[in-house]
Amino acid sequence: MKLPKIASEIYKQVAKDEQIPVEQLKQLIVAGEGVILCNPHHPGVKPLGVGKGLTVKINANIGVSSVCQDVELEMEKVRLCERYNVDAIMDLSLGDSIGSLRRRIAHSTYIPLGTVPLYELFYRHQDSPEKMIDPFLKILEENGKDGVDFVVIHAGLLQNHLELVKSRLIPVTSRGGSMLMKWMKKHNKENFLYDHFDRIMEVCREYNMTISLGDGMRPATIIDETDAAQIEELKNIGELVLRCRSAGVQCMVEGPGHIPFHKIALNMELQKEYCHGAPFYVLGPLVTDIAPGYDHITSAIGATMAAVNGADFLCYVTPSEHLALPNLADVKDGIMAFKIAAHAADLTRGKGWERDRAMSTARANLDWEGQKKHALDPDSFDKYRQAIPQDLDACTMCGEFCALK
Amino acid sequence: MKLPKIASEIYKQVAKDEQIPVEQLKQLIVAGEGVILCNPHHPGVKPLGVGKGLTVKINANIGVSSVCQDVELEMEKVRLCERYNVDAIMDLSLGDSIGSLRRRIAHSTYIPLGTVPLYELFYRHQDSPEKMIDPFLKILEENGKDGVDFVVIHAGLLQNHLELVKSRLIPVTSRGGSMLMKWMKKHNKENFLYDHFDRIMEVCREYNMTISLGDGMRPATIIDETDAAQIEELKNIGELVLRCRSAGVQCMVEGPGHIPFHKIALNMELQKEYCHGAPFYVLGPLVTDIAPGYDHITSAIGATMAAVNGADFLCYVTPSEHLALPNLADVKDGIMAFKIAAHAADLTRGKGWERDRAMSTARANLDWEGQKKHALDPDSFDKYRQAIPQDLDACTMCGEFCALK
Repeated sequence: MKLPKIASEIYKQVAKDEQIPVEQLKQLIVAGEGVILCNPHHPGVKPLGVGKGLTVKINANIGVSSVCQDVELEMEKVRLCERYNVDAIMDLSLGDSIGSLRRRIAHSTYIPLGTVPLYELFYRHQDSPEKMIDPFLKILEENGKDGVDFVVIHAGLLQNHLELVKSRLIPVTSRGGSMLMKWMKKHNKENFLYDHFDRIMEVCREYNMTISLGDGMRPATIIDETDAAQIEELKNIGELVLRCRSAGVQCMVEGPGHIPFHKIALNMELQKEYCHGAPFYVLGPLVTDIAPGYDHITSAIGATMAAVNGADFLCYVTPSEHLALPNLADVKDGIMAFKIAAHAADLTRGKGWERDRAMSTARANLDWEGQKKHALDPDSFDKYRQAIPQDLDACTMCGEFCALK
Repeated sequence: MKLPKIASEIYKQVAKDEQIPVEQLKQLIVAGEGVILCNPHHPGVKPLGVGKGLTVKINANIGVSSVCQDVELEMEKVRLCERYNVDAIMDLSLGDSIGSLRRRIAHSTYIPLGTVPLYELFYRHQDSPEKMIDPFLKILEENGKDGVDFVVIHAGLLQNHLELVKSRLIPVTSRGGSMLMKWMKKHNKENFLYDHFDRIMEVCREYNMTISLGDGMRPATIIDETDAAQIEELKNIGELVLRCRSAGVQCMVEGPGHIPFHKIALNMELQKEYCHGAPFYVLGPLVTDIAPGYDHITSAIGATMAAVNGADFLCYVTPSEHLALPNLADVKDGIMAFKIAAHAADLTRGKGWERDRAMSTARANLDWEGQKKHALDPDSFDKYRQAIPQDLDACTMCGEFCALK
């Protein structure tokens, strides 16, 4: 592909983080099988490599909604993401604070930031039958100037896909997808993101914003898994991937959502095939729909299987998914579940074993400080240990019958 | 195999629960590829089918330890297991209340109960160099009279396996296994459970206690996964499976523990091969060791993959694993994670889809009462919903921008 606008020192930094040679990383980027999330306008951003052969990354979604506008809570979530080493954050805000919160996040954290510019467009310009692309490009440019590192562009969704959702139990779950579909139907027009994709790429190239090709047609339930609507959109996304490569714009591809466990590997294969090996960014996926309140677990199971089979980037799901905006505890639970999924998948690629070895060595030695040090969440470790009698050099599970002794 | 002592009405009841013909169930039991946990001495027990082609079952471990003797808390855990439809309970108690708590549990719940009689033996007779089998058989008989439905017998572990753990990072994690190994080394004797397996089977047949062939050599960390110690014990367990079948004693086989994700399918294949298709009862397995405080998640990921690849029975792991005895909240978290794992695996076998369909239909209709009804945990569902403004006919995630609307 045409080379994206990435400075040499960025390549060096990411190659060092990933413990691979710089040349290998460059080849990955040139092949379009990897991306580096890094907008030079994002002050102090820590560039993030995502793609084939790199460690699996996780993203945390935050953001206010139009009925729940506590921006300070969202800033606390950013701090939580930093504390627990989240790789990327998406601000999915809706409401009047869309722009100001985005800027505040970008200017306060080193974590790469993603947004869905379409939300702002429809929040501010809901009823325009025409000329949607001009205000959209303006918003996109603002995102670039604000330091946003990746943007979701739902350009894969086409007018001739709209019929395909009619046989579904739940026609649509993507917020961006549903906004677009509503507009396309109302005005009987083609998706303006698709029609003007060249202009969108131009802005994204300017700010090295990676395009995350959104899956507006992703199934909303495992009942509707891997159906024609999803696959037809995916094929079109595959063509957009090639256009991005020609234009020197980094891109990755978004995926479901909801997939029963035995169809996850198939979904990863289809994506890699149709989308020419572009990095795959999945939301979960949830492996069942019956566990509201525990969807961080239903989706961590799916995410592990997805990452083992080729997904590169995992968007977390919190326990409050399908029920409410997550509070801080929900965000933490979502982060931990996905740190586990990403690490479990890394292990299958031969990465990260030194940490498990260190933890197990500490366990073998009944070295509680060492265990805490290597734990994914030392805070939770402390919480459990503090409830245990101080004179007991063991845990309360087996007491003096500890197998390790 | 020789027919175990199971009454006709028990077969009928289980066949009905599993929605399969009685004859199919009987063939499964005769083939030794399924078991029915049901001791006629357990008052009001709900017989439980476990094995090939049946739904995946979950077990919750409870029990006091010698340093934490709150029996009332354990009884509350039993109530929690009933409330959230746990399939089986194991009482792993150590301490003076071993016998009394076991009886109290068996007489207060319809859920099949398992124990590890070896714990009581070593708690009461730690230093006997000889004649361990007589007190053991007495304890086993008491378990039978008390209504225990399945017992762990670590008969697979042999003297010539002891050397094999020396190369491990952590030699042993099984509590029963470590007790036995210590005794075998100290007195330089063969495992008395193996030497007197015929007498053990005799007692188990009398009470139709299913033997759960314990894996005393299971790895304690993913670093030691699928090693010679584990496999040699497994092969010996495979021979004991055949002896159980000849004797008309139901049996299943226990498995790890700690397995990296990409080795889980292999482990299931090895067990089914070496153990002649006997039902496989796995503990987790955890797919990484770095997440103490979240091992219900690391193990639910492994458990799903295990069940998809042939495990029939999943022993839950709680967030407090490796740290402390679980409190009520931990037990509930463990239960939910494993209900999810079992259901996700059932879906891959074509079972349980009607519940996901019902849930998704309720979601499509924004029918919150319907969603609660089909939720795995209606209590948690309520907790989240109650925090939402009552006049909002949606969740706070998207507010008026709900894709479903």
